[in-house]
Formats: sequence, C-alpha cells, structure tokens
Amino acid sequence: MSSSEEGALHQSWAWPTGATRVAAVIGDPVSHSLSPVLHNAAIRRLGLDLVVVALRTTKPGIGTAIAAAREFGLVGLMVTMPHKQAIMEHLDAVTERAQRLKSVNYVYWEGDKLVGDSVDGAALVDSLRTDYEVQVRGKAVALLGSGGAARSIALALADAGAASVCVISRNLQTASAAADLAGSLGYVGVSADAAQADVVINATPVGMAGTSLSGLSPLSVDYLHKGQFVCDIVYNPLVTPLMELATAKGISCGNGVGMLVHAVATAFEAWTGIPAPLEEMQAAARAETLRRV
Amino acid sequence: MSSSEEGALHQSWAWPTGATRVAAVIGDPVSHSLSPVLHNAAIRRLGLDLVVVALRTTKPGIGTAIAAAREFGLVGLMVTMPHKQAIMEHLDAVTERAQRLKSVNYVYWEGDKLVGDSVDGAALVDSLRTDYEVQVRGKAVALLGSGGAARSIALALADAGAASVCVISRNLQTASAAADLAGSLGYVGVSADAAQADVVINATPVGMAGTSLSGLSPLSVDYLHKGQFVCDIVYNPLVTPLMELATAKGISCGNGVGMLVHAVATAFEAWTGIPAPLEEMQAAARAETLRRV
Repeated sequence: MSSSEEGALHQSWAWPTGATRVAAVIGDPVSHSLSPVLHNAAIRRLGLDLVVVALRTTKPGIGTAIAAAREFGLVGLMVTMPHKQAIMEHLDAVTERAQRLKSVNYVYWEGDKLVGDSVDGAALVDSLRTDYEVQVRGKAVALLGSGGAARSIALALADAGAASVCVISRNLQTASAAADLAGSLGYVGVSADAAQADVVINATPVGMAGTSLSGLSPLSVDYLHKGQFVCDIVYNPLVTPLMELATAKGISCGNGVGMLVHAVATAFEAWTGIPAPLEEMQAAARAETLRRV
Repeated sequence: MSSSEEGALHQSWAWPTGATRVAAVIGDPVSHSLSPVLHNAAIRRLGLDLVVVALRTTKPGIGTAIAAAREFGLVGLMVTMPHKQAIMEHLDAVTERAQRLKSVNYVYWEGDKLVGDSVDGAALVDSLRTDYEVQVRGKAVALLGSGGAARSIALALADAGAASVCVISRNLQTASAAADLAGSLGYVGVSADAAQADVVINATPVGMAGTSLSGLSPLSVDYLHKGQFVCDIVYNPLVTPLMELATAKGISCGNGVGMLVHAVATAFEAWTGIPAPLEEMQAAARAETLRRV
C-alpha cells in the first residue's frame, strides 16, 4: 500500500479514482457500523489510496460475498453479525484464536490465502493497557455476559495472564462455555462475586442507547468499590449507566471506544502493513458516536 | 438518494461511512477508468452519500460480480472491457438499443430488475449537440472504425436522424455490420468518402496516448476541409493527432471528453434520479486526463 503526500489525494473532489483499492465491512445490518469511519479516517490521515465501504450482506449471501472479495481482489474484510461464524467455511484458513472462538471478525490476505481472525478480546486487553494503563496480568477479573464478545474477552484475558476470570451471566450454559475458554482460570459466578474482582468488564449490551436495554446497568453498584477498574464495551452512549454509577462512587472506568479502535487498528495493520494512527481513529470514533446521539 | 448540504459529508476525514451507498465500475483492467472520478466529482458536488469504486473483474468472474451486485444492493454498475457482451445473460433485462448492439455499458435498477443499457453512441450525439452545437439531423456523417464504439455510434446517428452514415474501416465485414445498424442510411465507404461528409467521427483508437497507435491520425488530412466538423472519441491526449491536423486547416473539431461525460451522466441519472452536474464532470475528466499525461 503506497502512501501519497498526507491526505492530498483525498482533498480532490474526484476521489476515489479507478486506481483506488477497496476493502469492505460486511454484515446485516451494516449501515450503523463505525468501522468504515475509523478506517477511512486513518486512510485519509496517511494519504493511502484505499477506501473502506460497507456492503450489506444477508445471511444466505455470505458465500457470494466471499467469492466477490476474491474476484474483486478486495484488500480485506471486517465481519459483523450475522456472519462471524458462518464465514469460516468460506475462508482458506483461520487463526488459532478464531478457531477456538468459532468466530471471525476480520479477514486479511496471507499470500494468496484468505485468513480469518478474531480480535475483539485482544483489542479490549490492548485498550485496557494503552488507553487506561490497566494491566490484566495477575488480576482477578469479573466478566459480565456470555455472548460472542464475552467469549472473545475470556480467551484474551487468559492469554494475557489474568489471575482469574469470573463469568457472570443469567445463562449458565453459555457462561460455562465462556469460562472454559479461560481454561483453569475461568469459573462461573454470580453478581456479588464482582465485589472481589480487580477489574469488572461489561460484555453485555445492557445500557446501549437505542435498544430496550438503554438506561440500564448490568450490575448493581453495591458490588463495585474504589480501587477497581470498570470497563464497559458499550460505547454509545460514551458514558454508560454502569460508568455513571461507578464514577459517582469514585471508581475509575472506561468505555468501549478503545476496544473498537484497537480491533479496527489490527485489521488495518494486517491489510496495509502500516501502523494504524490510533489517535486519529479514536477521534473519528468519538466524533461519529457523538454525531449519532 | 438523499442529498446533504453541498459536499459537507465529503469534507469529513471520515467519509465514506457505514451508511454510504456504493456503485461500481467493473472491467479488467479497470484502474485506468475515468468513470469513478467523474461520478465522484458529481456526487461530491451534490453532497450525495454515495461512492463509486472500481472493482477489477476478470472475464470468468462476471457472473460472480453480478451476483455480488445483487447481494450487496449496489446502486448501479458501469461496465467496461471485457464484459460488455458477456454481462447480458446475467441481467434481468436490456434496453432495445443494448439488444441491437449486443453490448451493455451500464446497469441500473428498474424496481427489482437489473437492466443493462448501451449509451456510448447516444452520448456522442448528446456531446455533439450540447458541447459543440452540432446537430446530426440531416447531416452526412463519415464514421471511422467498426468496433463496439463505432457500432453504438452508427445506431445512435440513425436514431438522431442523420442523412447518411458512411462507415470507413479496413475490416469490411465488421464495417458492413456497423453500417447495417444505421439501417437504410448506412453504407460502407473508403477514406476518400470522408471528403463528402458534413461530420467526420473517429471511433478507432488511432492516436490514443500510451498505445502503439499513439501519434497517428486515422485519416489523411487531404480528405478534410473547412465547413466540416471533426470529432475524435479519443480523449487522451485532449488534442489528438487528427484534431491537430484538422485545426491546422481551420476545421472545427472536438475530442471524446464530452462523449465520456454524457455517458457517465446518463448512468448517474439512472442511478440517482438527479440531473448530473455536467460541468463538474467535464472539469473532473479534463483534470484527470491532464494529471495522467
């Protein structure tokens, strides 16, 4: 991926041109995805002749979408619902963590092979470290939720050396499966167990704006106390109900913007071979989130 | 296609977003195509949330490309070599002129049907009228060449009421087929016949920069005289060898930029339902052509 003078290409009224390479975000729905905005902000900052577009892909259309990605020589894909699992059979290879999670959230080329990886959990760990200076190594972590995001985070926490991962979810079966991904460090707990954690992570959609769960906290503030770090993977609103409760008690906390940024940055780097401009992506994510409120 | 404040969207460092609709140019090679630049200049001028990208599509990949266009809900396609004929079997319908020409150069939606049309010839007639104030009605026209562009122009000239269409080509078989498209007005001639024409059109690639035919004229200047109008469908260089010869003799002439602009404008209007900003497209075409010299 060659780079021009900073952003010069993109100041033209005529960009993109016939020579501009294309990458895509696929999912259904996909119009709400922040990924294109983050990628295109980074691309413009670096002056690359690449554009990331959203291509709505229905559930039965995933095979067509991957065939098209190969035919068109797309630079890469970000993958969102409902394709994270179904896409796997259409790829040439998946990374070990994607295989363990049975989930892919971006696709890149390794030579002529289309490879799927799952980076959500690792992106959260990256965000905790670089955005909030929270190292998970040796920490007791309480993880709220047992869906795809929680599973990915459980695996990444174990990989990053957490002391324990307590999975708290109303669904005991999926909670147990998520805890298993953290190996011997993982176990299923109840809400009150969050009080013993050093780090509390909300990996449920509770509190997300525009949903029936908007305005709610996934955990009673009674189980939170000073000295903990509370991280919500929700980023809309930028300050979630859980974060409001924690902040009122003087507890440090963070939202899901950093996880999103690090996930997109990992894909960007796999596609372009160029370090992602994290600050530009973060600014774009915040601006776009605020624009939508 | 909704429009925002003029171009405001596009001044963002983060555009395109997840909500931006996508149209594509398909062909192989496709990176040289000027269509994206013309479309995107118009889109930016009008502030539409639409982007046109080039998707390289190999000859055997045309079926995959059309399946993808349907799956992704692409707004439309421009079609270039080598797909103009092969694409037809993958569409739901083609216009009468596309059927007669056995060629499609753009695709649009009519309800839930994907329809192919062939606009090159009509675009040249439009360009002669609006860019050069040359009406072909009642005129004797000499047409150099018998390839796809010449065929399309022969048909459009007959539709526009030309008095006669003299097809001049070294290949007498394809010349005869092109002349047939002009019906009873069409006949096959030799270079000297151009002297009797009111309008002389070069529809061969002779004179095109970057090819083995660069620097050459498709016709001896001996057959040209004042009072004629000479139009070259080549637009790179902007002043072709044929145009140089004609200009030196005081003969009015024009290049292929207008034909390109009108062809893209027709597709743009079919896709968006909005009148194309022709001057913006023309400026973009000239700027991009000059940039490449």
